[in-house]
Amino acid sequence: MIRLLLLDGLREVPVDAPVLRADDLGVVRGEAVFETLRVVGSRPCYLDEHLERFGRSAASLDIPMPPGFDELAAKAAAGIEDAGLRLTLTKGGLGMAVVFEIAAETVGGRSGIRVVTLPLGLASDFRRTAPWLLGGAKSTSYAVNMASSREAHRRGADDAIWTSTDGYVLEAPTSTVVAHLDGRWVTPPAETGILAGTTLRACASLVEIATLPLTVDDLAAAAEVVLLSSVRGVAPVTDLDGRKLVTPAGRALQSAFEASLRR
Amino acid sequence: MIRLLLLDGLREVPVDAPVLRADDLGVVRGEAVFETLRVVGSRPCYLDEHLERFGRSAASLDIPMPPGFDELAAKAAAGIEDAGLRLTLTKGGLGMAVVFEIAAETVGGRSGIRVVTLPLGLASDFRRTAPWLLGGAKSTSYAVNMASSREAHRRGADDAIWTSTDGYVLEAPTSTVVAHLDGRWVTPPAETGILAGTTLRACASLVEIATLPLTVDDLAAAAEVVLLSSVRGVAPVTDLDGRKLVTPAGRALQSAFEASLRR
Repeated sequence: MIRLLLLDGLREVPVDAPVLRADDLGVVRGEAVFETLRVVGSRPCYLDEHLERFGRSAASLDIPMPPGFDELAAKAAAGIEDAGLRLTLTKGGLGMAVVFEIAAETVGGRSGIRVVTLPLGLASDFRRTAPWLLGGAKSTSYAVNMASSREAHRRGADDAIWTSTDGYVLEAPTSTVVAHLDGRWVTPPAETGILAGTTLRACASLVEIATLPLTVDDLAAAAEVVLLSSVRGVAPVTDLDGRKLVTPAGRALQSAFEASLRR
Repeated sequence: MIRLLLLDGLREVPVDAPVLRADDLGVVRGEAVFETLRVVGSRPCYLDEHLERFGRSAASLDIPMPPGFDELAAKAAAGIEDAGLRLTLTKGGLGMAVVFEIAAETVGGRSGIRVVTLPLGLASDFRRTAPWLLGGAKSTSYAVNMASSREAHRRGADDAIWTSTDGYVLEAPTSTVVAHLDGRWVTPPAETGILAGTTLRACASLVEIATLPLTVDDLAAAAEVVLLSSVRGVAPVTDLDGRKLVTPAGRALQSAFEASLRR
């Protein structure tokens, strides 16, 4: 951690200070919401998009959203050249901002990642009808996301892509899937219960990206695939379930996205 | 909270003291495991069973298990007549024990609860083949469990029972389902990815409980249903999806279970 600030009073506290109570429902039941942003040149990138989703996530988990996260993010980002920023709000009412160094592995992912598909066990249309599964909410109940990443590592890959029981592509544990198919970028619809990607929104303002059901067969036939997330940015997939992929369109998108962060 | 102790040094600290760092993976990603026990007459009930599962959960989440939780639990329970005890171990390495007052709503549940079934969207045999879904691990990534309980409350019930896409009964968000069917108690197998209930184990040493696939139709035809969990104990279901149920066998099991806690 580079810096830790609390929403309460917008105070900076020592990074190693314990800040959460043992009975905070964010600790006890994973009932907290978060957003991870990139900070470039003292600016939290795409902050409005992140705060919008942060609010939706909090509503899903029945967590009242206090004001002040915009100011907190700005204060946390001040003087930071390039880093990650995590905003968290727990059901116990603790709001905080953590500025962290971007891991070497994350930066390395921008050069290319190997990916394996993993079944999630859900039908692509199920979460739309079952709000208790919290589809689309970015909560800290992320143990399955982390276990899926570990499974990918066990299989010799860097990341995973979850697929549905009815043969559709969903998302990656911490990023959005976009495939280059028949000359255009395509990404699965949020109605499948996946997170509405903020980096996807940013990229969709730079190139045309169609939101359409994407089958596992489409993915297997795609010329290129990228995974989008805030801190890693555009990660070109170089190997998908053992198939080698080229990355020219992905690298062009990456350049455009990285440039947008410095605008 | 009545009492808070840290594993490190088996020290008691003030209940309102912040004890978790902002970057603990237990906070950031719900990567922590926990067990909730009942304490009766200074004794943590069925402690061995809980510690066994605690160890299995930690292994699932790749969290190294330090020694000392048995001592910590014993120290936390000292002088406590009847309360709840939660043991937690985070991926950041924080171990703690919280003694808490049993909520009136929890005690009330022993008199009878209304339950609704909710689909979980998974097939009953899926999690056995997909360890990344962390079936059977009791982690703090519990937001979906809590959201399922809220959905039950919205439907005018006290609790939920999750069902599978292929028509089987799974578990409740924080308890095990046992149905009285054709004169015997039946509970679903752990191979469905549900938590191996410690209270179920305790009850199975008191009455015969068969572990068998339990269909949604079986449940709808069951003479009685109980939900088993450590602190609430045996909760007789009085209303299941709007159908009124009798509870004599459930109440007999409850009496036997409560007596076992004072042995």
